[in-house]
Amino acid sequence: MENIVAVKIGGNIIDDAHALADFLNIFSKIPNPKILIHGGGKIATSISERLNIPARMVDGRRITDEASLEVVTMVYAGLINKKIVAGLQANACNAIGLTGADANIIEAHKRIHPTVDYGFVGDIDKVNPALLIELLEKNYVPVIAPLTHDKNGNILNTNADTMAAELVIALAKSKKISFVYCFEKSGLLKNMDDPDSVIAQVHLSEIQQLKEKQIITGGMLPKIENISHALENGVEKVILCHAKELGSIIKGNSIFGTTFTAK
Amino acid sequence: MENIVAVKIGGNIIDDAHALADFLNIFSKIPNPKILIHGGGKIATSISERLNIPARMVDGRRITDEASLEVVTMVYAGLINKKIVAGLQANACNAIGLTGADANIIEAHKRIHPTVDYGFVGDIDKVNPALLIELLEKNYVPVIAPLTHDKNGNILNTNADTMAAELVIALAKSKKISFVYCFEKSGLLKNMDDPDSVIAQVHLSEIQQLKEKQIITGGMLPKIENISHALENGVEKVILCHAKELGSIIKGNSIFGTTFTAK
Repeated sequence: MENIVAVKIGGNIIDDAHALADFLNIFSKIPNPKILIHGGGKIATSISERLNIPARMVDGRRITDEASLEVVTMVYAGLINKKIVAGLQANACNAIGLTGADANIIEAHKRIHPTVDYGFVGDIDKVNPALLIELLEKNYVPVIAPLTHDKNGNILNTNADTMAAELVIALAKSKKISFVYCFEKSGLLKNMDDPDSVIAQVHLSEIQQLKEKQIITGGMLPKIENISHALENGVEKVILCHAKELGSIIKGNSIFGTTFTAK
Repeated sequence: MENIVAVKIGGNIIDDAHALADFLNIFSKIPNPKILIHGGGKIATSISERLNIPARMVDGRRITDEASLEVVTMVYAGLINKKIVAGLQANACNAIGLTGADANIIEAHKRIHPTVDYGFVGDIDKVNPALLIELLEKNYVPVIAPLTHDKNGNILNTNADTMAAELVIALAKSKKISFVYCFEKSGLLKNMDDPDSVIAQVHLSEIQQLKEKQIITGGMLPKIENISHALENGVEKVILCHAKELGSIIKGNSIFGTTFTAK
């Protein structure tokens, strides 16, 4: 099997029908083996509102109660995942949509916190990549929704960035893998206010210094944590970029995105 | 690979949390290889009502417009399918939830009708069972939701009974398969008003006579059509029964259900 390409997309693509269609077209052209991990976007919030399920927040964090869990299960595993699968199939890409509960791919537990009960939010215990490897070897393209399970019959709402990092780490144990992490910017910016100030290359050893210089700050911190975690655990390369640049990046055009390496 | 057991369940089990838990416990004890096909139940209707999506009916038939399609995609592929998968995983049954769009398992087209536009309702063109056979051989347990796709990017709402019949027929081309068709009664009744009048055995050649005698009538007609179609196309045996009798039937207790055979 050739090197695996894993791509993560977030809400900025999922919530925009045109951007999603463009992305699926580009993604379908990446040579196999490849895997897509998607986030949730705003649809779950709008469906919750329409169903009169109030958003319960504690310390600015959303609580996934039983009603909210039903909504995210419907939206992530149903609406978004199957829209992506059907869209890829229309591009002759043999997609198969899964959650972490399917084939026991990701075992998790309800988040334990000393003061806040986050409800049905999952923290990952273990990734079982056997099925994914079998699918990748047979040219199927797994499309993963951000849900796991606790092995006691409960689905758990799980952070898509964390899930993507844990999945690529698990696959890296037996396969070479590159991780393309798409988000709303074109990469890690030297100057937050200048979208053209993308840093082309970052070595794992430089990350600490970039944090000290406040280049990695705020909302970038958890993203870079996930990237560091992946590089420290066998992932060859992580490219942080905007989804619309994916086509150029896959062709090896290194002027787009930030490439993080460990070697 | 041993003989495959395919089980179809409908709304009467899906809409009743206790009945579903009991069923999943029994189903998980059936030796592999096995596959589960589930229907939709009433949840999609109640979610549609809560979302203020009116049910559009033409000649007593529900029309699946775009808003309704989103609801059935959420409910069938998300809520119901993943509830079943997580429930089976809790019973140490390595379930994997899929629709007909995943891995292009079922290709369909929007129903063509001279006077009624049914909307996003799928009539099946082709079943591609390769992935299902690979999964069954590796001891995964496919759990199939009643959705297909048109290869142009559209998910299609598809009758679960028809889907189950077409799936077992496709699997029967290369594997021996028994089909257990669970519904709200204990089998084919000689006297509709007497739930104990279950006919134990029916040969394919007797079905026409049972229709003429009005023993197969009304709502039983489409079910028996599907059963005949399966038997005429290589399925060894179809057992029509109530889901609560599944445990006894699997143990070979022939006093439960109606067994339809072609040989």
